[in-house]
Amino acid sequence: YDKDLYENNEVAGVVTGLAWTQVGGDILFIESSLSPGKGKLTLTGNLGDVMKESASIAMAYLRAHSNDIGIDAHVFDEWDVHIHVPAGATPKDGPSAGVTMLTALTSVFTQRKVKKHLAMTGEITLRGKVLPVGGIKEKILAAKRANIKEIILSKSNKKDILEIKESYIKDLTFHYVSEMNEVIQLALLKEKVNKPLDLSPKETKSKV
Amino acid sequence: YDKDLYENNEVAGVVTGLAWTQVGGDILFIESSLSPGKGKLTLTGNLGDVMKESASIAMAYLRAHSNDIGIDAHVFDEWDVHIHVPAGATPKDGPSAGVTMLTALTSVFTQRKVKKHLAMTGEITLRGKVLPVGGIKEKILAAKRANIKEIILSKSNKKDILEIKESYIKDLTFHYVSEMNEVIQLALLKEKVNKPLDLSPKETKSKV
Amino acid sequence: YDKDLYENNEVAGVVTGLAWTQVGGDILFIESSLSPGKGKLTLTGNLGDVMKESASIAMAYLRAHSNDIGIDAHVFDEWDVHIHVPAGATPKDGPSAGVTMLTALTSVFTQRKVKKHLAMTGEITLRGKVLPVGGIKEKILAAKRANIKEIILSKSNKKDILEIKESYIKDLTFHYVSEMNEVIQLALLKEKVNKPLDLSPKETKSKV
Amino acid sequence: YDKDLYENNEVAGVVTGLAWTQVGGDILFIESSLSPGKGKLTLTGNLGDVMKESASIAMAYLRAHSNDIGIDAHVFDEWDVHIHVPAGATPKDGPSAGVTMLTALTSVFTQRKVKKHLAMTGEITLRGKVLPVGGIKEKILAAKRANIKEIILSKSNKKDILEIKESYIKDLTFHYVSEMNEVIQLALLKEKVNKPLDLSPKETKSKV
Amino acid sequence: YDKDLYENNEVAGVVTGLAWTQVGGDILFIESSLSPGKGKLTLTGNLGDVMKESASIAMAYLRAHSNDIGIDAHVFDEWDVHIHVPAGATPKDGPSAGVTMLTALTSVFTQRKVKKHLAMTGEITLRGKVLPVGGIKEKILAAKRANIKEIILSKSNKKDILEIKESYIKDLTFHYVSEMNEVIQLALLKEKVNKPLDLSPKETKSKV
Amino acid sequence: YDKDLYENNEVAGVVTGLAWTQVGGDILFIESSLSPGKGKLTLTGNLGDVMKESASIAMAYLRAHSNDIGIDAHVFDEWDVHIHVPAGATPKDGPSAGVTMLTALTSVFTQRKVKKHLAMTGEITLRGKVLPVGGIKEKILAAKRANIKEIILSKSNKKDILEIKESYIKDLTFHYVSEMNEVIQLALLKEKVNKPLDLSPKETKSKV
Ligand SMILES: [Ca+2]
Ligand SMILES: [Ca+2]
Ligand SMILES: [Ca+2]
Ligand SMILES: [Ca+2]
Ligand SMILES: [Ca+2]
Ligand SMILES: [Ca+2]
Ligand SMILES: [Ca+2]
Ligand SMILES: [Ca+2]
Ligand SMILES: [Ca+2]
Ligand SMILES: [Ca+2]
Ligand SMILES: [Ca+2]
Ligand SMILES: [Ca+2]
Repeated sequence: YDKDLYENNEVAGVVTGLAWTQVGGDILFIESSLSPGKGKLTLTGNLGDVMKESASIAMAYLRAHSNDIGIDAHVFDEWDVHIHVPAGATPKDGPSAGVTMLTALTSVFTQRKVKKHLAMTGEITLRGKVLPVGGIKEKILAAKRANIKEIILSKSNKKDILEIKESYIKDLTFHYVSEMNEVIQLALLKEKVNKPLDLSPKETKSKV
Repeated sequence: YDKDLYENNEVAGVVTGLAWTQVGGDILFIESSLSPGKGKLTLTGNLGDVMKESASIAMAYLRAHSNDIGIDAHVFDEWDVHIHVPAGATPKDGPSAGVTMLTALTSVFTQRKVKKHLAMTGEITLRGKVLPVGGIKEKILAAKRANIKEIILSKSNKKDILEIKESYIKDLTFHYVSEMNEVIQLALLKEKVNKPLDLSPKETKSKV
Repeated sequence: YDKDLYENNEVAGVVTGLAWTQVGGDILFIESSLSPGKGKLTLTGNLGDVMKESASIAMAYLRAHSNDIGIDAHVFDEWDVHIHVPAGATPKDGPSAGVTMLTALTSVFTQRKVKKHLAMTGEITLRGKVLPVGGIKEKILAAKRANIKEIILSKSNKKDILEIKESYIKDLTFHYVSEMNEVIQLALLKEKVNKPLDLSPKETKSKV
Repeated sequence: YDKDLYENNEVAGVVTGLAWTQVGGDILFIESSLSPGKGKLTLTGNLGDVMKESASIAMAYLRAHSNDIGIDAHVFDEWDVHIHVPAGATPKDGPSAGVTMLTALTSVFTQRKVKKHLAMTGEITLRGKVLPVGGIKEKILAAKRANIKEIILSKSNKKDILEIKESYIKDLTFHYVSEMNEVIQLALLKEKVNKPLDLSPKETKSKV
Repeated sequence: YDKDLYENNEVAGVVTGLAWTQVGGDILFIESSLSPGKGKLTLTGNLGDVMKESASIAMAYLRAHSNDIGIDAHVFDEWDVHIHVPAGATPKDGPSAGVTMLTALTSVFTQRKVKKHLAMTGEITLRGKVLPVGGIKEKILAAKRANIKEIILSKSNKKDILEIKESYIKDLTFHYVSEMNEVIQLALLKEKVNKPLDLSPKETKSKV
Repeated sequence: YDKDLYENNEVAGVVTGLAWTQVGGDILFIESSLSPGKGKLTLTGNLGDVMKESASIAMAYLRAHSNDIGIDAHVFDEWDVHIHVPAGATPKDGPSAGVTMLTALTSVFTQRKVKKHLAMTGEITLRGKVLPVGGIKEKILAAKRANIKEIILSKSNKKDILEIKESYIKDLTFHYVSEMNEVIQLALLKEKVNKPLDLSPKETKSKV
């Protein structure tokens, strides 16, 4: 594989998730970016309706909890958000990228770095719960192949990890969570990316 | 089951409903949240058209009766509402979550706490009636398994309860209602949640 | 049946219609309500395209004849209208609820009471004609079972009534109409409902 | 048949057309009405796409030729137009109601009376041509049954009339046209309807 | 055929194209017209998606090259454009009307007369190329039957003309082009139509 | 083939890509153009959803990196963009035109010339990666036939080139890239096209 493709965390808004297809597990990337605009959300990557809903839930959570997360609410009206999930030709669906999407969006709206060698999988709910998802064994093996060191999962998926032969996963650290704020705390560094976007409200900027 | 998932009522806008599927009854959660906006309603959770209509009816009822319920009408134009029904991968439909949606929305727009260990099921109409729904026996058994203590139903569903063996339901309290305002009175506490949202009109806020 | 459900006429905007399904006739309710807004029309109740068109025709008729009916035209731009037809799970279609929708809308926009024990069925046209509809016999029998005393029909449906055995319908009064304004005059009382909505134009209100 | 239904021409915007179905010819009514608004066009009556396009063409023609026809262009931005074709349950399609729609719209925007006992059928084009349509024989017989005295047709449909046995049509007057302005001149009286709408520009009105 | 229908070029915006159907070649008309508005583009005539795209490409080309063509860019924001392709009941598709649409739009936006006895067929691209199309032989024969004297084609269609027996086409003049601007130069006269629309910017007009 | 069709690079916004169909490889052109507007993106050329998403990703990348690329962000709100991919009748889909679209858009928004005799193929991602695509051998042979001299590919497609018999490709230069900015640097000249559009912000222009 192409190491450069994902071992770099210099860009805000890109988080590694875990997918499960008929031919086995795989890693996937949630890429998000901001551009000056009016709060439009664009989704690409051949996403099904359930996966699109996950992005909508993640945005609603961020908007409702912006104070706690440290995002100025003005940002949501002054920037357009784009979420893309490569590769473009592969149809993707399901709720299990919810935590990955929320983490990517939090990173891009705070410009905080994402922890390296970390992947995650889990459904999110509007009030901030992390629900279990399927295909855990296949996802974990894919993560290992891709040099992932830490994995975030729902507490309710712990039982699936316990069923995996220990020798396979001895190099991996698992974080079991039940709330979205735990995910954000585990996945994002305090440090901002190099050359972060200036997301301070336009009004403030024009006053200066 | 994961107790934390629903025994907590510290968050406004989350109410327990009862669902009926081909594999039996189940509990479900209506999650609602507000974020600063312009009155947009977003629905997620793989909902069918009839269920989406229930949310639309609940919003229309709230807007038409905001005075009686104690909601300042400005709120509807200054906040976006999101309703989500986990889990995201399960298709859901039918009118029976109407009372649950109305209760969730009333809670989120008043920031009042929802009573603990309470569940409900029933269709709503625009003028405030509560209509009977199907699958009562299966729903009640699911409620019991989930540690529910009180259940709100349409008066016209009383006959379905009377057909259930009494030993099964001796620990449950049933509330039979015919009007939405009875539901709200039964389900919401006077007390607001901890750290309630400040929903006072923006104009007032900017005056101060 | 639940008498409370429809024998009450204390709410403006609710009118009893007659429906005809494969399993016989039935009564149905057209519920309408207003909330502060910008003139948006929302339709719920699992309605087919033809039935939705009836609502659109009724609104156009009201807007074009507001002076004659005694509605200040400003109202249409300052309130949102919602029309719901319970029950939510039953698909409904056809033009025969046209007169019922027009009557419900006229009641809600004038806040006038609807006559008790009255039902109606008939298609409406844009210039105010009332056209005949099918299933008259089944609809009449359903009306009788539901304690209806008076029924409004198109003049062209008189022949269908004459074919019904007289003993079946001796307690019913029939009103045969050819114009919408006859329907409104027959169905709405001069009296307003208790605690009517204040629909006077916003501008006037803010002047005071 | 119900004479009142169409022998009256006291209302502007209602014109009689001729339709052709599998069970023979029939007359139909194009009903149009205006209400204060912003230029929205609404179409009802279970119309197919080709028939909806005819309405769009008729509106475009009117807007492009408003000066010649004597309509103040402001009217198109200050009034909403609704076109309905009863009966609501019957699907209708095809371009042959084009001339009827154009005539109805011209009547409603000028408030001029429509000639009595007149029917028409013909496709319209954007530059004002009247094209021939099918089913002429069946349409003519239907017109006769409905007490129609004069019929407007495309010049190119003259050959279809010549094929009809003369005794059938001796009471009918045929007008063969090739341009829309001929239709309008033939179908609309100079005289306005009783109590015409005041369509003078709002600006003018507010100046007074 | 009806000579009047197309031998007249007194109206701007109407251009003769060539179509190819399963039953042979035919001529068609692209009709375009302007009405005061905000730049909306409406397409009628039962057009398929590819043909609708041709209209969109033609508009984009006109907007991007308005200076060269002599159109004041304000016009695009102050007028609505309607393109219709009779007859309304016939489904039409394909890219071969591209040059005809572009020529019609150029005529309507400049009010220049279209050359008489001229027809054309060819696909257009966004940067102004004219691409070859199919069915040339059938189209040419149809043009001849309709008294066309000159035909504009893509250079790459020259080989198709060379395959036609010369006696069939000796009365026709062919123009082979590779760029749109050649088409416009060949098809439009310098002369404006009689009573041209006043398309000068509104601002200028209100200054006077 | 028609050399003029693509050997010219005097127009900004037109870039040569490589396509792969069931009948072999082919070259294709991404044509883009700007017209005064409000930032609307229009796509034509019978494009499938995945290909449309590529255009959306390319626009998002440009907007997010406008500073680095040397585009004033005002431009995106003051111009409409149209992307067309001839020929109009051929359905096209897939992510492999991503780099070509991004290059075309960059050229049109900077008015920089595109290098001659250059073609490219590759999927793009939102954070600027270039991913490998399929059909490399067929695409390369098509490029050769079309007199292409240089080809840009994803690094991950190098292995596909190494499998092609060397004699076939000895005249071609291959550029293997992993980031979008490499593509732009390779494909666009510093030099602007002849008579470039004036894309300076309107505000600046009106000040002068
Ligand atoms: Ca892509
Ligand atoms: Ca995932
Ligand atoms: Ca989800
Ligand atoms: Ca429920
Ligand atoms: Ca319902
Ligand atoms: Ca009815
Ligand atoms: Ca109707
Ligand atoms: Ca037509
Ligand atoms: Ca007709
Ligand atoms: Ca053509
Ligand atoms: Ca085309
Ligand atoms: Ca390509």
